[in-house]
Amino acid sequence: MDAKRLLIVGGVAGGASAAARARRLSETSEIIVFERGPHVSFANCGLPYYVGGEIEEEKKLIVQTPDGLRSRFNLDIRVNSEVTAVDAHMKRIEVRDLQTGKNYSESYDDLILSTGAAPLMPPIPGIDRPGHFTVRNIPDVEAIMDWVKLKQARSAVIVGGGYIGLEMAEQLHHRGLAVAIAEALPQVMAPLDPEMAAWLHAELRSRKISLHLGDAVARFEAPGDHEPAAASVVVLKSGARLAADLVILGLGVKPETGLARGAGLAIGERGGIRVNDRLQTSDPHIWAVGDAIEVRDVVTGGRTLIPLAGPANRQGRIAAGNIFGRAGKYPGTLGTAILRLFDLSAACTGASEKTLSKLGVPFQAVHLHPASHAGYYPGAHPVALKIIFSPESGKLLGAQAVGHEGVDKRIDVLATALKVGMTVDDLVNLELEYAPPSNSARDPVNQAGMVAQNVLRKDVDIVQWHEVDALCAEQALLLDVRDDAEREAGAIPGSLHIPLPQLRQRLHELPKDREIITHCQTGQRSYIACRILTQHGFKARNLTGSYRTWKIARDHGPLSGGHL
Amino acid sequence: MDAKRLLIVGGVAGGASAAARARRLSETSEIIVFERGPHVSFANCGLPYYVGGEIEEEKKLIVQTPDGLRSRFNLDIRVNSEVTAVDAHMKRIEVRDLQTGKNYSESYDDLILSTGAAPLMPPIPGIDRPGHFTVRNIPDVEAIMDWVKLKQARSAVIVGGGYIGLEMAEQLHHRGLAVAIAEALPQVMAPLDPEMAAWLHAELRSRKISLHLGDAVARFEAPGDHEPAAASVVVLKSGARLAADLVILGLGVKPETGLARGAGLAIGERGGIRVNDRLQTSDPHIWAVGDAIEVRDVVTGGRTLIPLAGPANRQGRIAAGNIFGRAGKYPGTLGTAILRLFDLSAACTGASEKTLSKLGVPFQAVHLHPASHAGYYPGAHPVALKIIFSPESGKLLGAQAVGHEGVDKRIDVLATALKVGMTVDDLVNLELEYAPPSNSARDPVNQAGMVAQNVLRKDVDIVQWHEVDALCAEQALLLDVRDDAEREAGAIPGSLHIPLPQLRQRLHELPKDREIITHCQTGQRSYIACRILTQHGFKARNLTGSYRTWKIARDHGPLSGGHL
Repeated sequence: MDAKRLLIVGGVAGGASAAARARRLSETSEIIVFERGPHVSFANCGLPYYVGGEIEEEKKLIVQTPDGLRSRFNLDIRVNSEVTAVDAHMKRIEVRDLQTGKNYSESYDDLILSTGAAPLMPPIPGIDRPGHFTVRNIPDVEAIMDWVKLKQARSAVIVGGGYIGLEMAEQLHHRGLAVAIAEALPQVMAPLDPEMAAWLHAELRSRKISLHLGDAVARFEAPGDHEPAAASVVVLKSGARLAADLVILGLGVKPETGLARGAGLAIGERGGIRVNDRLQTSDPHIWAVGDAIEVRDVVTGGRTLIPLAGPANRQGRIAAGNIFGRAGKYPGTLGTAILRLFDLSAACTGASEKTLSKLGVPFQAVHLHPASHAGYYPGAHPVALKIIFSPESGKLLGAQAVGHEGVDKRIDVLATALKVGMTVDDLVNLELEYAPPSNSARDPVNQAGMVAQNVLRKDVDIVQWHEVDALCAEQALLLDVRDDAEREAGAIPGSLHIPLPQLRQRLHELPKDREIITHCQTGQRSYIACRILTQHGFKARNLTGSYRTWKIARDHGPLSGGHL
Repeated sequence: MDAKRLLIVGGVAGGASAAARARRLSETSEIIVFERGPHVSFANCGLPYYVGGEIEEEKKLIVQTPDGLRSRFNLDIRVNSEVTAVDAHMKRIEVRDLQTGKNYSESYDDLILSTGAAPLMPPIPGIDRPGHFTVRNIPDVEAIMDWVKLKQARSAVIVGGGYIGLEMAEQLHHRGLAVAIAEALPQVMAPLDPEMAAWLHAELRSRKISLHLGDAVARFEAPGDHEPAAASVVVLKSGARLAADLVILGLGVKPETGLARGAGLAIGERGGIRVNDRLQTSDPHIWAVGDAIEVRDVVTGGRTLIPLAGPANRQGRIAAGNIFGRAGKYPGTLGTAILRLFDLSAACTGASEKTLSKLGVPFQAVHLHPASHAGYYPGAHPVALKIIFSPESGKLLGAQAVGHEGVDKRIDVLATALKVGMTVDDLVNLELEYAPPSNSARDPVNQAGMVAQNVLRKDVDIVQWHEVDALCAEQALLLDVRDDAEREAGAIPGSLHIPLPQLRQRLHELPKDREIITHCQTGQRSYIACRILTQHGFKARNLTGSYRTWKIARDHGPLSGGHL
């Protein structure tokens, strides 16, 4: 392999991976990494946990120091060094040393842009008031912690209910602050469908975190005389006024494409740097990786932005490989992601119902609530699991899960299945580990496959949580087959109650001329009820996810109407 | 669907699943389940945890009662009913009611055999002495608990280091008994390769459980005058005498094929009932599922016995589906399995190195020790991970993992990958969840793919833990590139020490005419060292798994020689 002069802009996830891989492949190349900030290779995903004290020492956030990278990989690491321009024609970049103010230029054979994404700062009046912070790097969290200490902050308003916003809400709550979240959308964690996000709403409310959903920020005001707020009063569109000693802005990110645009590189429809599947930009000697680029969505085939560390790391490795003769392609993204929020985890992979509806892609969705491990072994919790699949081919399109335990595992299995285009039949046949402390003999993924297979083969027809009201209005009969104790703890209004064990004896109580919607607690017993009814000539469908899914949507999701 | 008369022999995992599925598909069929024991659908995998007290109530072990199954599924459940013969020609079975002693016969349209597997009882002298127990059903564990109480048992000897043996060792230790394990093989948990099983040996020894490996039982003796043992003295081939107040026999299981043989059904080469992929025996109206049958090993293509609850459950569902017009095939087994042993979990899927060696299948294996989640977030532990793949195609052949956290997740992802014939390149590209509390940006499975890919693409050549001694005898130089503190904590004898950061400056200290075997703690830094050396013209290979793998094999595995 010939020696090259490789310059890398950005020294965190994608850039650092690319640099290390490049050195492993070419001992004789010159490799220079330019990083605008003071740190390379820091743990940006760990920042909220440092604020909350779960990570106790700042140095833990430094995955690699410039010295470490120099000695291990013989890299020329230049921190506090901003690349200000790229001349693609001359294959040169302009650099400003932020400490000396000196400008200089460097030439390259190949250039990798790992410029990341910047926090969105929409022009909301007062958004730049003091005490407002974004969470992108170590200086940001240092500033937050200094402010909290200085102002003895007791309240925080988080603007935006995405990953960063929710993690910061959790961590500031751990620090004892009273936390409110303002989110313009009617739900937090947008990649989830609303009835799945509802579990997060319930968890946040159970921690006394106040949620303002579907209520965007109108403006940030200086606090009035009777408004104790060391930072701002956050005024929402609804008129609500939230006093905040600290404001965290988690309004999403946008790809940093200034350098790429300046160099005349192609920019994609979503505003990210356009690359081919080798991660090459429109200039053959400039490569781009990480949050700054657009990638292919494996499920929808469209272009998407995926500002996550996992893809960035793999992309860095692939780009460096391509530069040094190890041909590799980035196969696109599934958008697999997870959030730990207090005792819950919420995760997803592939397309959501929302996305598929928007794109007009036909889909079917099933909900279930299997135990995280064998129910007879202590500590099992239900996992709210949703899988979305093609109603024609049965091909998996997406999956979402929320629960106390085992959410990461099931989403990882489903992400692996999705990657290779598995059908719901394939899910049934997966052979996953089983021992009582970690699983059931039928893993929740197997169960999801079975439930979907029954729908696909038309052994049962289903109804979704959001269809119940309309169907009842059309004279459908809602049949609750749970036992008495479950019924007493709460029921869907207007439903008829016949416990499953009595159903065969009480069929005469049911009408043959009305559609019957069966439900139980999770959908499993009511599936049996549905099979009994249809085989006896009734017209019946099963409420998928049953009472649990309906109830969370009713209490904390879209069915709660104006009560959000 | 026409109504049928379906008889099912055996009412636990496979039989109970088949019965429930059959009823869901056919409301009008007559379905009778015959169970020799007093319980149907009990949690056989939970039995050890009831002995140890983790599961506190016996009723928790009863997944479904006969009454529950009757009322929910309209099944005719006959417990304490032994099927004594099958007349395939007449389509009749003979039944003995074990409570009344009455014999009667029943006719069938279709018959499902779910007869399970019986504990092996080799003709070891004294094996049937009082105080000796197997662990197959609830009466077994009741008898164990009665005996422990009656004899105030303080010591137990477990004969056999398989799943049941190890789980019982753990649980009896929880109850405060002094536990010894005698295993004829040189390792416990035979599906694992020996250097992976060594982690379990270390864990057992750290709990003061005494291990007698490679030492079969010669005989069980009545205790002598000075041998306090309420049950037996277990005499090993080595002459060791283990006094036991309680003896657990966990010597494996064999398929119960008596009925099948009597009916003239084909029996396979491994001694299980032979079935086609629809789970039909050699008689088209007799089906068989669960521990009693032979299934195809997906990786090796051979026939195997897989006495596990997960496959049994799925097989029951498939057999019932085939009988009632839902065509389905059982695609064979990967042998995915897990053991929780104190703080460790050990799991595997696919073929082991041992199996592939025996079959003469070419393979390559890599070891790594990635963190269970982001190293900078509290509570991360290394996972000992081994993947085995084809050196030609890169196709995954098997995987094994041992660790404190996240073992189940990684093996489930690898089992899913294995199922569809993924290569190590595919593992690199899996898009798995990442957040600091649950993972690293590069999941251990991604990392395993990368390590294997480097070997496959010949970016690095590797050496296995068991090759080190022979290579050193042939004048290879062992080079330790860890830092000083790691070196001081222990090193491989005869190795040269140059910390990685100094390597480029100290190349002149190394010989060009000798092969250099690099190692570090896990193999990651020594891979970098290997890349540096080979690019500088040295002949170098990397010790896969490095010091951690070598050290466990040395202290608790095959390299410990006579010290086991």
